[in-house]
Formats: sequence, structure tokens, C-alpha cells
Amino acid sequence: MAILGLIEYEDANPEVRAVYDDIMATRKTDWVNNFWKAIAHDPATLKRTWEDIKQIMGPGALDPLTKEMVYLAVSVSNQCGYCIASHTAGARNKGMTDAMFKELMAVVGMANESNRLVAGYQVEIDEQFKV
Amino acid sequence: MAILGLIEYEDANPEVRAVYDDIMATRKTDWVNNFWKAIAHDPATLKRTWEDIKQIMGPGALDPLTKEMVYLAVSVSNQCGYCIASHTAGARNKGMTDAMFKELMAVVGMANESNRLVAGYQVEIDEQFKV
Amino acid sequence: MAILGLIEYEDANPEVRAVYDDIMATRKTDWVNNFWKAIAHDPATLKRTWEDIKQIMGPGALDPLTKEMVYLAVSVSNQCGYCIASHTAGARNKGMTDAMFKELMAVVGMANESNRLVAGYQVEIDEQFKV
Amino acid sequence: MAILGLIEYEDANPEVRAVYDDIMATRKTDWVNNFWKAIAHDPATLKRTWEDIKQIMGPGALDPLTKEMVYLAVSVSNQCGYCIASHTAGARNKGMTDAMFKELMAVVGMANESNRLVAGYQVEIDEQFKV
Amino acid sequence: MAILGLIEYEDANPEVRAVYDDIMATRKTDWVNNFWKAIAHDPATLKRTWEDIKQIMGPGALDPLTKEMVYLAVSVSNQCGYCIASHTAGARNKGMTDAMFKELMAVVGMANESNRLVAGYQVEIDEQFKV
Amino acid sequence: MAILGLIEYEDANPEVRAVYDDIMATRKTDWVNNFWKAIAHDPATLKRTWEDIKQIMGPGALDPLTKEMVYLAVSVSNQCGYCIASHTAGARNKGMTDAMFKELMAVVGMANESNRLVAGYQVEIDEQFKV
Repeated sequence: MAILGLIEYEDANPEVRAVYDDIMATRKTDWVNNFWKAIAHDPATLKRTWEDIKQIMGPGALDPLTKEMVYLAVSVSNQCGYCIASHTAGARNKGMTDAMFKELMAVVGMANESNRLVAGYQVEIDEQFKV
Repeated sequence: MAILGLIEYEDANPEVRAVYDDIMATRKTDWVNNFWKAIAHDPATLKRTWEDIKQIMGPGALDPLTKEMVYLAVSVSNQCGYCIASHTAGARNKGMTDAMFKELMAVVGMANESNRLVAGYQVEIDEQFKV
Repeated sequence: MAILGLIEYEDANPEVRAVYDDIMATRKTDWVNNFWKAIAHDPATLKRTWEDIKQIMGPGALDPLTKEMVYLAVSVSNQCGYCIASHTAGARNKGMTDAMFKELMAVVGMANESNRLVAGYQVEIDEQFKV
Repeated sequence: MAILGLIEYEDANPEVRAVYDDIMATRKTDWVNNFWKAIAHDPATLKRTWEDIKQIMGPGALDPLTKEMVYLAVSVSNQCGYCIASHTAGARNKGMTDAMFKELMAVVGMANESNRLVAGYQVEIDEQFKV
Repeated sequence: MAILGLIEYEDANPEVRAVYDDIMATRKTDWVNNFWKAIAHDPATLKRTWEDIKQIMGPGALDPLTKEMVYLAVSVSNQCGYCIASHTAGARNKGMTDAMFKELMAVVGMANESNRLVAGYQVEIDEQFKV
Repeated sequence: MAILGLIEYEDANPEVRAVYDDIMATRKTDWVNNFWKAIAHDPATLKRTWEDIKQIMGPGALDPLTKEMVYLAVSVSNQCGYCIASHTAGARNKGMTDAMFKELMAVVGMANESNRLVAGYQVEIDEQFKV
């Protein structure tokens, strides 16, 4: 299921369990998805990654749904199958409707297309856009 | 300024001018940025790209600002300098504050990091996420 | 001009000069572009890369112009500025017209768009396409 | 089979059926592949994407086989499994032989290699290649 | 110099100065490069990113030079100009010779090539490699 | 198992067998993995790719384990499933421990994150890093 296997809650040490507990409490759910169980083999990475994501994805100037859709958009652009599946579920949990999903995909596709037209035509930055 | 040069309004044929006019009217501005002037050498691509973007980026289930920030997020993930400059400007025009920009960048960075952790640890999709 | 500098013909050792000579003879030109002068600091890489490219890009089941346009298409998709500039010039030398360039860019853009729609919608491979 | 499921012909509304009919008529085939059935949940994206592809991939300055091989080359470079499978089939239908396929792959691989050598050695664009 | 400008030490608030001080102390240097001055507009991202990098890049099972070369390899593969420049300098500071740099580039190029051959030929994972 | 199938040793012509023999002798193993059997349909590509890899991955200024880990890092960054599986096995054969693997993944993830922060904040190269 992963190169080093998955660490289940009952087999986890207290440091790992503390992260799992926080994930479940923060997300108001009773399970932990494979990503965390896979990287739990490296407790430092597990803790750092979870704390980063918790900080970044929380409410702020952008609402959590918008952040989750941006996360999904980047994962689609990078073609990461696992990330697309998990963040589609995550975005739906936060309120993404099918209509929103479809428009999101259209934007991601269009951005990938125009990014390449820009590159191929060697378009230089307008003075108006310069820093 | 671009591999085939830029076609200015005064040198454009009626077909190209019509697109330029629609861009300026839709965006309520009096200028056209280099991207369009560069691809105007291919009027079919100019027209198709503009009509696609106009359809995709208009209001719908997602508001125009969210769409513009997703477009920017994908362009940042793809590291397209021109697109980053133009869509940062575009998102600001639609209301993106510096605080929103900073959170957006944090999400894009985080997604790119976790996408690779997933790949490297060879994490399989949870049953709960399967289609 | 490059991290280790550029090795000009007059400063090159015989091994490097032999590659430069073959590049110019094969391309029927009297100069060598920066890419080769930059990697000439590693003569093994210079020789290997040139021999690979000479073998791969020569006439075969695909003609040299088609190969050069594919090289350009990949470079545009990867957004490599130097490669886009050099292979646009290379393709033009082999007969790429502006009309061909424009259609090529349209295909590259479209492929990048649909690749992401496929990823986002999680489309599975049709039985008819399976190996 | 796809995040929103696949819309079969018999379950499709008239707008979607019209696109399916045009796909089959244009391609002289009696079936529609999963990509279209997946995005048919968004009829606007289905119609726009099909019309774009029909316009872009049709005969012009480049012949349809060359375009299909470029599409495949970009999909291989992007490592999109579905797209590779479908466009390999598409290119073969248009005349790509195994010999052509093999040379195409060699060019794609080589371009991806040299693109990174250019980046790593920080090669600057030759005056001769400048726009 | 950056979309939000660069925050110099003398203009930084205590929170940002503390990070700058730690960067200079850790690296045994008396200046801070632009990356940190650019993201200092978002103190949370500055602090998080620096602490992550400090933790990840420190000595462990892999020595700091190897880690820095891996960082450079990924940056080259992603074609990030700034990152290539800064991590080439960083790796040299930690002992990367020109000979090591050249071999590193050759590996990065080769990996990018073979990654695409694998994709294009649709190679399935050997039983021996399966998790 | 691959688009053109896999060529087993007993079905291979002498040219292909010679490469298989060299792969097994060099790696001190009695089997050949699918990648080689898939590209063996193009003996020129098989021979060129093997000779390139043999030259590049051999001992030099960098030791074989470091090279193999860099190869793995790039494959993870590119999200090539087959390459990740085969080069994880390859690196382990050369001495990569789980602790080294975990640190390697952390570096790859971090590099992918900071590459995008650099792009999004439009950070310019410091004078100190300029070539």
C-alpha cells in the first residue's frame, strides 16, 4: 500500500498517535487517510507536514474551501492521482458542488494551455505588469 | 517582444480588431496585453483562445476572483513567468489583496511538496476516495 | 553566459574541437551555439549528447523537420526558453513555415489542456486502448 | 470509471448526443471514448473541447498524422497515462508505424534530457536566436 | 526585485529579524539572499519555510552536501532559474566541485529522458519492484 | 505489459542479447527489468540508453549510491511510478537505508515547495549568485 507500509493507529508510537489524534480532531472525522500512515515512518516529516498543512489550510484571508480547491487545482495540474482523489473528497467535504468542480477543471485546463502558448510565442512581459 | 512580433491595433485586420475590441470591452480597459498581440498572428487561435477564456472565466458557480486566483496558482505551479505577472495583475484587479496572495502562494507551495511525498512513498488511494 | 562559462573553438582541446567540427559539418554551418560551448566543460557529456542527438535527429521513419518540430513541441511544453529559441530556429532552417509553427503551438496548448481534464476527471483507460 | 461517472449515449441529452454524433462522424467510428463521456457532465466543456480539438487537429499546414504524433509526444512528456494510450491509438489509426513510434519516443526522451542540461548549465540564448 | 518588494534587515520587524539572524548564524554568513527577503512579507511563511529547511537540510543519514545536490537536481529538473543559481552556490559552499556538478547534471538529464521512455512505452512495474 | 510487448532473452536477437548480457554482468544479477525489455523493440535506443546510463551512473566524482538517489529524487519529482519503483530498488541495492530514503523524500518535497514560492513571489537572482 506504500513503499514502507502503513502505520495503523494501534501500532503507532505516542508521537505519531498525537498527530493522528490532531488530524482526526481538526477534521472532525474518525479515520486517517493513507498519506499520513505512509509518511508516519518518518515522524519528523509527519509532524512537520501536518503542522504546515494545518497552518496553511486554516481560515484566513482565503476561506478553507477556496484553499482546498486551489490545492486540488495544483494536484490536477501536476497529475498526482492520489492527491486528486483525496483533495476532491476534501473539497466536497468543505462544500464544493459538482458545478464548482467542473468550472475548476475548466480553469486548470485553460491555464495549462495558455501557459504553453505564452512559452511558444516567446511573449515578453508588458511594462504594465512589471514589478 | 515575441517570436512573430506583436500586432498592434492599428495594424490589425478587422477580425483581429474585433477580438481586441471585445477584450477591452469585457475587461473595461483601453489596452490589450502582449499575449493577445503575439498570438494574433494566428487569428483562429486568437479568436478561439479568447472565446474560451471569456466563457471559462466568467461568473458561474465560482466567482471571477476565485477563478483568477486558481489560474494564477496553476501558472505559479508551472513556473510561467509571463502568466504569473499577468494573472497576478488580473487577480488584483478583481480584488485579491496581499494577504490573499500570500495565502495562495503558501497553498501552491504546500501542494507541490505533498504531491511529491505521495509519489515517493508510493501511497495508494484509500478505498474511501475511490470512484 | 553559463555557469562554467563557454568554451570557444580556439580554447578547446582536440576532443572538444572534433565534436564542434562534426556539429558544424553535419549542420552545414560555421558556428556552434552556446549549448555545446557550455557543456563542453564535460567532454564526455558533450560527446555523448551530440552523438545521441545526431543519431536520433537524423532521417529515418520520420523526416528531420518532423523530428525538429516534436523537439520544439516538447521544449514549449516544458517551458525551456533557450530550447524554444534554438529549436524554433532549427525547425525554420529545416523548412518550418510560420503557418506550421502556429498550428504546432495550437496542438501543444490543446494537449496540455486535455491532459489535465483527463487527470481531474479521473478518466480510466478504455478497454479498446489497453495494451 | 471517472469521478462523476460516464454518460453513455442512451443517457445523454440532445446537446451531448450532438457532440457524440459529430465525434463519431468525424472519426468515422461507431464509439466514443471515455474522455468525452467523462467531461459530458459539463456540456459546455464537452462542446468547447471537441470543437477546439476538431479545429486544431484537422488538416492544415501540418497533416493530421503529424499533429497526432505531436499530441502524443506532449502527452508522453507530461506522463499522462490515459492520453498516451488514446493518442497512441489515434496516431496508429492515422498511419503511425512502429518505426515512427520508436523514433518519436527517442526524440521526446532526448528533448527532456537536453532541456535540463540547458537549465542546469544556465545557458543563455545566443544572439542569433534572439527575437 | 520581487512582486511585493524585498524587506531589508533594517526595515524588518523583530519576528523577521529573528529569522534573518538565524539564517546568517546557521549559514555562517553576513547576508540574506533575496528569497527570504521576498517571502518576509508573510512572516508565517518565512518562519515556517526556514524552520522546515533548517530541519530538513541539516546533517542526518545524508550529509548536507548530498542534500544540497539533491535540492539542486530537483530545481534543475523543474527548471527554476533562481533556485538553480542559489543552490549551485549553496552546493559549492558545501564542497561541490565542478566535476561533481557535471556528473550531477548528467544524472538529472538521463533521469528526465528515461522517465519519458518509460511513459511512452507504457512499461508496467516488475513484480520484483512491487510494494 | 508495454505498448509493443516485452522481448524476453530467448526471443531476442544477438544485438539485444549482448545488451541484456552486459546489463546483468554490470549489475551482477540474473534478470533484466521490464524497461529494457520494452525498449528492446528499438535496438538502437536500447543500446544507446544502456551505454549512456552505464557511463553516467558509474563511479566518478560522485559515488554510485549518490547518483542512484539523485535519479530517484528526479523520478519522484516527475512522479514517474515505474521509475520510482525501480530506482528505489536500485538505491537500496547500493546501500540506501530507510533513514536515507526518508530524508531524501523530505528534500525533494521541500525543493518542490520552495521552487514555487520563488516563482510566485517573482524573486530575482541576487548579484552574488549571478554567473
